[in-house]
Amino acid sequence: MPVRPPRDEVVKVERPEPTRLRVTLPGVELAGALGDLPGKVELLRWDMADPAPHHDIDLVVAPYLPGNAHLRRLDGVRTRLVQAQYLGYDGVAEALPPGHVYANARGVHETSTAELALALLLAAQRGIPDFVRAAGVRRSEPAWYPSLADRRVLVLGQGGVGRAIEARLAPFEVDVVRVARTAREGVHGIAELPRLLPSCEVVIVGVPLTAETEQLVDAGFLAALPDGAIIVNVARGRVADTAAIAGEARTGRLRFALDVTDPEPLPVGHELFRLPNVLISPHAGGMSSAMLPRVARLVRRQIELLMTGGEPVNVVLRS
Amino acid sequence: MPVRPPRDEVVKVERPEPTRLRVTLPGVELAGALGDLPGKVELLRWDMADPAPHHDIDLVVAPYLPGNAHLRRLDGVRTRLVQAQYLGYDGVAEALPPGHVYANARGVHETSTAELALALLLAAQRGIPDFVRAAGVRRSEPAWYPSLADRRVLVLGQGGVGRAIEARLAPFEVDVVRVARTAREGVHGIAELPRLLPSCEVVIVGVPLTAETEQLVDAGFLAALPDGAIIVNVARGRVADTAAIAGEARTGRLRFALDVTDPEPLPVGHELFRLPNVLISPHAGGMSSAMLPRVARLVRRQIELLMTGGEPVNVVLRS
Repeated sequence: MPVRPPRDEVVKVERPEPTRLRVTLPGVELAGALGDLPGKVELLRWDMADPAPHHDIDLVVAPYLPGNAHLRRLDGVRTRLVQAQYLGYDGVAEALPPGHVYANARGVHETSTAELALALLLAAQRGIPDFVRAAGVRRSEPAWYPSLADRRVLVLGQGGVGRAIEARLAPFEVDVVRVARTAREGVHGIAELPRLLPSCEVVIVGVPLTAETEQLVDAGFLAALPDGAIIVNVARGRVADTAAIAGEARTGRLRFALDVTDPEPLPVGHELFRLPNVLISPHAGGMSSAMLPRVARLVRRQIELLMTGGEPVNVVLRS
Repeated sequence: MPVRPPRDEVVKVERPEPTRLRVTLPGVELAGALGDLPGKVELLRWDMADPAPHHDIDLVVAPYLPGNAHLRRLDGVRTRLVQAQYLGYDGVAEALPPGHVYANARGVHETSTAELALALLLAAQRGIPDFVRAAGVRRSEPAWYPSLADRRVLVLGQGGVGRAIEARLAPFEVDVVRVARTAREGVHGIAELPRLLPSCEVVIVGVPLTAETEQLVDAGFLAALPDGAIIVNVARGRVADTAAIAGEARTGRLRFALDVTDPEPLPVGHELFRLPNVLISPHAGGMSSAMLPRVARLVRRQIELLMTGGEPVNVVLRS
């Protein structure tokens, strides 16, 4: 893959022949994972930390970095498509300069995020954190734990992540209750939560962060759950109220497994780290080996669509 | 439930009318979970730590205790069926006095054991032990981990546990390789392991302990696996060679998640407890809330079969 030349050269250089498609990638791993591409695709490296390597880029693949500040680098750059590596796009409308088409990473993270949701839930149910702590003092301490089997599990969010979670729950002998922002056949609406929560021993939060879902998991939501229930959050930290979580965690009435928190990362020394009924992962939903081949598949598809004049997939915003 | 009277009384007491079925249970929880039974069933409590409460018991439900020493209490007792709460019955033939019919707990532990296998595997793959240790020093430390998705998973053992594991793996986007003692359609035999292991990144051990499987997971087995592979054992500790495990764990070449060990429990201070690439659970496969309702369902079924003259299910030995 060509390494981006120093900026002065970029504006001076004459390309020997017109390329059909100019694509920027944030790193070399993705270039490797893309495999062979048609000769008419010019790949440049751009991590969006520096100014753009060209004023005219057909496809910009944005880096996998938290926040949206890097999107401001697109100011003055003509693009046909900006491909993000995130599924959530809260704050993108505010950060993206005008004139760009923005696609999210639908299809990339569902596998890995749903997998982490099950990892957190199964680990918490079956005592894995206790076993790790016991090993820390070089012993094993048998005890009984609640199975996931026979539990009623409320899956909050029926997008790709929610559906991928339900698919993975299916063989575990559970009773799944589906909830989404909008009620529909087989799916309860958020307004029904007060009636549904008292019988649910597990809640998995997989909704996007919107005005409607911000602080949805608040003190009242948690108070409606039965003693011993567990809440798994793999969505966004701000979907829940951290003070309300800490309140129910401190008494030991509820259990939590949180891949996302508010603030994020949770400050060193935060109270939630020391509670045995709280399991914290460092927003690792997408951070697995499952990501790269799925990003590569999506980018290849967008390249093919742009080259053949098709409509790109996953477009969620036009600025 | 009647509490067992002191032994002297037992032999003297005259039952007011003949019961159709005399059943001993090791604890009160099971009696509660059985629910209503026909009036012709007499329930007695017997944990098999003391001599039998009667010389003639139709159904003895044995306690959920490791080892088989308690079975010697059946010497001189006439039974129609001895119902164990374990799936494995290694050593039972040696411990059971003559004249008894012994049923294992098929259908009771598969759910819970397969669930723990997935909990161990997912936790180890996605970094949960690291997150718990990081929380121990009050921080979170992001890192990339291998997903379960896209892995080739060898399931060793095609009994109830192996099938329950495969069912739970199915939605995780893995490639499952089935191996059992006997090759058959869709299932490889143990003899094919040397050819299969080099391409498998995950091995889940769910075979019963027999002369054929003892120390099956030895140094040669482990050496055939690719770097970074993980071995999950939810079968019996003696199916694997602990020295060979320690050897590959110490160098960090392989990873392990072990619900069973040899010796068991692993002695306090054992080397395996301090290796970050080894996750140890305390033979907790069956120790979950999933067990009691499934034991109760099996015992009810055996009671119904014995009362109606049917053949009991799950009979694995006649002594």
